[in-house]
Amino acid sequence: MPAYETRLKVRFSQVDYAGIMFYPRFFENFHAVFEDMFTDRLGVPYTHVLRDRRIGFPTVSISTDFRKPFRFGEDMALKLDVVKLGNTSITFRYRGFHEGQAEASVEAHGTVVVLDLDSFETMPIPDDIRAVLEGLRAEDVGSA
Amino acid sequence: MPAYETRLKVRFSQVDYAGIMFYPRFFENFHAVFEDMFTDRLGVPYTHVLRDRRIGFPTVSISTDFRKPFRFGEDMALKLDVVKLGNTSITFRYRGFHEGQAEASVEAHGTVVVLDLDSFETMPIPDDIRAVLEGLRAEDVGSA
Amino acid sequence: MPAYETRLKVRFSQVDYAGIMFYPRFFENFHAVFEDMFTDRLGVPYTHVLRDRRIGFPTVSISTDFRKPFRFGEDMALKLDVVKLGNTSITFRYRGFHEGQAEASVEAHGTVVVLDLDSFETMPIPDDIRAVLEGLRAEDVGSA
Amino acid sequence: MPAYETRLKVRFSQVDYAGIMFYPRFFENFHAVFEDMFTDRLGVPYTHVLRDRRIGFPTVSISTDFRKPFRFGEDMALKLDVVKLGNTSITFRYRGFHEGQAEASVEAHGTVVVLDLDSFETMPIPDDIRAVLEGLRAEDVGSA
Repeated sequence: MPAYETRLKVRFSQVDYAGIMFYPRFFENFHAVFEDMFTDRLGVPYTHVLRDRRIGFPTVSISTDFRKPFRFGEDMALKLDVVKLGNTSITFRYRGFHEGQAEASVEAHGTVVVLDLDSFETMPIPDDIRAVLEGLRAEDVGSA
Repeated sequence: MPAYETRLKVRFSQVDYAGIMFYPRFFENFHAVFEDMFTDRLGVPYTHVLRDRRIGFPTVSISTDFRKPFRFGEDMALKLDVVKLGNTSITFRYRGFHEGQAEASVEAHGTVVVLDLDSFETMPIPDDIRAVLEGLRAEDVGSA
Repeated sequence: MPAYETRLKVRFSQVDYAGIMFYPRFFENFHAVFEDMFTDRLGVPYTHVLRDRRIGFPTVSISTDFRKPFRFGEDMALKLDVVKLGNTSITFRYRGFHEGQAEASVEAHGTVVVLDLDSFETMPIPDDIRAVLEGLRAEDVGSA
Repeated sequence: MPAYETRLKVRFSQVDYAGIMFYPRFFENFHAVFEDMFTDRLGVPYTHVLRDRRIGFPTVSISTDFRKPFRFGEDMALKLDVVKLGNTSITFRYRGFHEGQAEASVEAHGTVVVLDLDSFETMPIPDDIRAVLEGLRAEDVGSA
């Protein structure tokens, strides 16, 4: 199944004095595509999950390879899919591509836990959210 | 003439612990609409102006009224027009609107100078850029 | 009475591609000195005011003059005092100085309202907080 | 040899709507301790390395475990040491500790390459910088 995709532009506020995206700014973009995916695929705004259903997804680990810098003004095609779907945790893959490139210029694997925001205990992934995430499973990741 | 307009979504990374946009983040959005306007209206990316033509627009003053907060997940219609066009300086007006509202929820007047990035001296607004800015003059601002 | 003062260093994460502090980052610094002032002068962490006493201070307007840029690695002496103390609002003055300079390189006047975070209604400044703010009144601001 | 250590306070601008540090903000703190280490141990500001010697240290990969959240107002003891010192690359370890805790609440291993900022080619670590980094070698990391 295809990954969820967003197109972004590298902003002045995101580049460092060398004119390339400052690496912490990538993670803000990763979060933005995550929000958009929930809103689009679940059919309700991500805020609804957070505020009304009181479910959070704190990141517990993330590993990132920065292969090719993104310069101010360039476009990034940012793809999100799921490489591991546990009972109470999810591992997402974030890949940022330069225009027309088949290989990701930045790639991250980030694991979140599903948290009940009232009790602050982990909880099983709710069925409707699990269904959305099943639709985002990566096809090209072997044992991940 | 109508203002230049962009639609934005209030991101998780932009809100504070009260769930509303942290006020410094508004200025990043103001800069983003400024970049988009240049790219769209001038017909070349803003980066071209900055990097190839070596022209910068540092902000020398900005006054902002925050009238109504923007909450996480809300949309903002962000409008940019020009309230004063000097020889070497420009005063922009930034107005952020909630969905369907006629009154701006946030409004800023910000003045930039036009800077030669090699000499770091102010310079007259180049003709092609002036033509774009003339097309953005606010109609409803009296003596500004 | 002297202003409250903090010393900061201009960080890599705060400068733009021209190597100077990106103007939205100044406001994050202004908020940091505001937090430190509360913690030091009130004798309890600012978080205590926010979380336990449920009092917030949203910014309703701010005007800023950027007179001289701050470059990466430079120090900033950031001074905070009070130019107007109302019943339910406070106008702070933020001034950033380069090393050994008598004139502020950046100066902002920002007004906050005092907000009951449960009712989201404005409220009178509590006495203990008013006493702290009285101790920060600017001496050199005439009619402000 | 002991790690280089900085103490930080979790700022309002760094926390999310749950009141804990938004994970991308950790990386800004990691960069800050990196800057301070260079300035203190090399005896010249980090800006000197970047601007005058034209040497950059772009991050090519980083893996991070977030074990315990940092709440608004908490202190973080941030320790930096070196777990691998190559010819043209360096792997740093960043560990953030809560007050009085022996186990790191956040831990990252990040690899940078040494870059000639004029040619944009990797270059061997200069001797004076290597000497500083040798003094930061972690003792408790076996084969890393």
